Amino acid sequence: MDAKFAPAKRVAGQKQDVWSIVNEAAAASPVQPIVNMGQGFFGYNPPQFIIDAAKSALDRVECNQYSPTKGRPRLKKALADAYSPFFGRTLDPETEVTITTGANEGMLSAFMGFVEPGDEVIVFEPFFDQYLSNIEMPGGTIRYVPMHPPKDGAERTSSASNWTIDFDELERAFNEKTKMIVLNSPHNPVGKVLNKEELTRIGDLCLKHKVIILSDEVYDRLYYVPFTRIATISPELAKITLTVGSAGKNFYATGWRVGYLIGPPELIKYVAAAHTRICYSSVSPLQEAAAIGFEQADKVGFWDQQITEMKGKMDRFCQVFDELGIPYSVPEGGYFVLANLSKVKLPKDYKFPDHVKDRPRDFQMAWFLIMELGVAAIPPTEFYTEGRAHLAEDWMRFAVCKNDDVLEDAKKRLRGLKKYMA
Amino acid sequence: MDAKFAPAKRVAGQKQDVWSIVNEAAAASPVQPIVNMGQGFFGYNPPQFIIDAAKSALDRVECNQYSPTKGRPRLKKALADAYSPFFGRTLDPETEVTITTGANEGMLSAFMGFVEPGDEVIVFEPFFDQYLSNIEMPGGTIRYVPMHPPKDGAERTSSASNWTIDFDELERAFNEKTKMIVLNSPHNPVGKVLNKEELTRIGDLCLKHKVIILSDEVYDRLYYVPFTRIATISPELAKITLTVGSAGKNFYATGWRVGYLIGPPELIKYVAAAHTRICYSSVSPLQEAAAIGFEQADKVGFWDQQITEMKGKMDRFCQVFDELGIPYSVPEGGYFVLANLSKVKLPKDYKFPDHVKDRPRDFQMAWFLIMELGVAAIPPTEFYTEGRAHLAEDWMRFAVCKNDDVLEDAKKRLRGLKKYMA
Repeated sequence: MDAKFAPAKRVAGQKQDVWSIVNEAAAASPVQPIVNMGQGFFGYNPPQFIIDAAKSALDRVECNQYSPTKGRPRLKKALADAYSPFFGRTLDPETEVTITTGANEGMLSAFMGFVEPGDEVIVFEPFFDQYLSNIEMPGGTIRYVPMHPPKDGAERTSSASNWTIDFDELERAFNEKTKMIVLNSPHNPVGKVLNKEELTRIGDLCLKHKVIILSDEVYDRLYYVPFTRIATISPELAKITLTVGSAGKNFYATGWRVGYLIGPPELIKYVAAAHTRICYSSVSPLQEAAAIGFEQADKVGFWDQQITEMKGKMDRFCQVFDELGIPYSVPEGGYFVLANLSKVKLPKDYKFPDHVKDRPRDFQMAWFLIMELGVAAIPPTEFYTEGRAHLAEDWMRFAVCKNDDVLEDAKKRLRGLKKYMA
Repeated sequence: MDAKFAPAKRVAGQKQDVWSIVNEAAAASPVQPIVNMGQGFFGYNPPQFIIDAAKSALDRVECNQYSPTKGRPRLKKALADAYSPFFGRTLDPETEVTITTGANEGMLSAFMGFVEPGDEVIVFEPFFDQYLSNIEMPGGTIRYVPMHPPKDGAERTSSASNWTIDFDELERAFNEKTKMIVLNSPHNPVGKVLNKEELTRIGDLCLKHKVIILSDEVYDRLYYVPFTRIATISPELAKITLTVGSAGKNFYATGWRVGYLIGPPELIKYVAAAHTRICYSSVSPLQEAAAIGFEQADKVGFWDQQITEMKGKMDRFCQVFDELGIPYSVPEGGYFVLANLSKVKLPKDYKFPDHVKDRPRDFQMAWFLIMELGVAAIPPTEFYTEGRAHLAEDWMRFAVCKNDDVLEDAKKRLRGLKKYMA
């Protein structure tokens, strides 16, 4: 095609992403059906009271038409009510909450609202892959800071808290061009919950360098150790923090695309302005359902039940690693677990396709698991820059937000790893 | 706040938009409730078979989780089937159709997919306001070309086809930096359907200058004269055209945020890549419902019924202008009508607030209609650059996609204009 029809650089010539590699492998595997422990979608439906709320919204004319660009008043109010106790004060639904088309577009709206070409944004490795394109779209430059895996991760199971930040390294990433930092707690894929001390040290650096904190807390209802929200540590930090949440993650409905940001009016208004320019408004009937979800979740005990259930799934699944002597990082939150598969030896002459052969060992391991055992998981070096991919090449991410019979099936298959272990 | 926390230029310091001015005025009006003929949302629900489809999707686990980033296979297939007859060949649902989060984010995805900083995009005036920020986000520069109102628009009613393009003027807007042109047919707010000759002449210019055509056809099921899709005129034009559609507009559900683009694989793939980076994926259960909508609409006669009903509403409403001797542009498509209110004299000493006083006459007229008659409509100079706003300052946009009793109520109130007419 003529060069005049060429795509913009921001979308041209990307390497194949992990999701499509895993999906293609799954389709090509001789072991069918595949047990999918890869992508973090739920294997079950949202709770019935929220499904019912969505159905009843569909009967109301105003719930099928445009919502206000900043979100439906009922949802903003429900969120303000739900989060005010955490913040220790009454949030204003009109100025401190804004609705986005999923947390993903919410993060993009925040970057579009504040990042100018040349500005820098600090991101920890491993990162959620969408952050990168979302920062690059408004012209931002990414400064990567690694989280360091536990030194003995190949030998023994230990808490995800042992993935650590080197604060000198972090401080060196700040400079006068630093506009924002992205936090993610509970963390995907590590499962680490940033503790209050870590958050305070990060926050102090941000206050010193006048940097906006974009805190991705989409797993904020799934924590198995005490969970601190950075915005709630001090009024000073509240003033520079945008907290991102997701009704889809909260209510087992990743396909609903209802996200939200909470923060000070001076920051929220520009996120909302960017969102208006990106999506205009967000899906109306499911905003209404999410509103009812946040109104009722506490009353029906849904949040507690969610933690109990997911922790149960995590324990149930990780049992197979204990059995096999495969070490893993015990998650402090979220629904992902990283297992260290260094003890699993890939057969020397195993044939990998070119687009897998040239990637780090975890990509080969993911391919192998799909082809030999029929279990799909995500190789975490996808969430690293090339220079630091070695940090994670022995690990593999499994999502446990699946029905118990799926988890049992996965365990049965993973027992097949035994014959590949020294 | 410290300058380091300043918003990006793309969202900072915008003038108040027409929607919020009209909404504020509506809230402040002594005449309550307001009859809202302003924003183009439907005053009634989607047809029951589509509501039922949405409800049943909500019961299915996979319809509540992430959809593929390019859209649900069933929806892409339904769209390929629905549009293949117009295109005179079988569209490939996998490569020639992609789903977006409403047509708005679909347009943005197209601009993000192709526009680099410095590229130019041709846009006709009046324009849909979101185009501008969507072009500016990837760094594009807008070249405006006016549609010329009918010369005798203040004296007599005539077809919206009398809003014309000066083709010399259009040709002068093309240069080597021109990357895309935006078409909109049926047109909002003019109601013009670009005829085959006009489209051919525009298409020839685009072929000559190698410019991508982004054809916003969200009102493509609402035409009252023969409707031509530019992509269907010739295989050459098909190769350079992205057609944008909207399930929300098609099915009376502006709050569903399900849009789509149809075009050649070489263009569609970059739109899809941009969409993935912007929203990741689009709302799942309502994609499923839209799929069923497109599968069944023809069979149940929905498209024909839609035209009959909307044309009936248009005729019913415009009767009041005939009665009053107020000229208007008879729409060839869509659900907006532009009336020429030059015969209505605003009282000399009428008090307008500052943010209205300084805008063109149509803003004052809109304010006056809300305050005195309790009828909200949209001043069309919002859809013009400042230098050309005078072209539209006597006109006013009314949306007729409302229940008949609302239309009758609006007519009753508009009869109050009589005493302000010379």
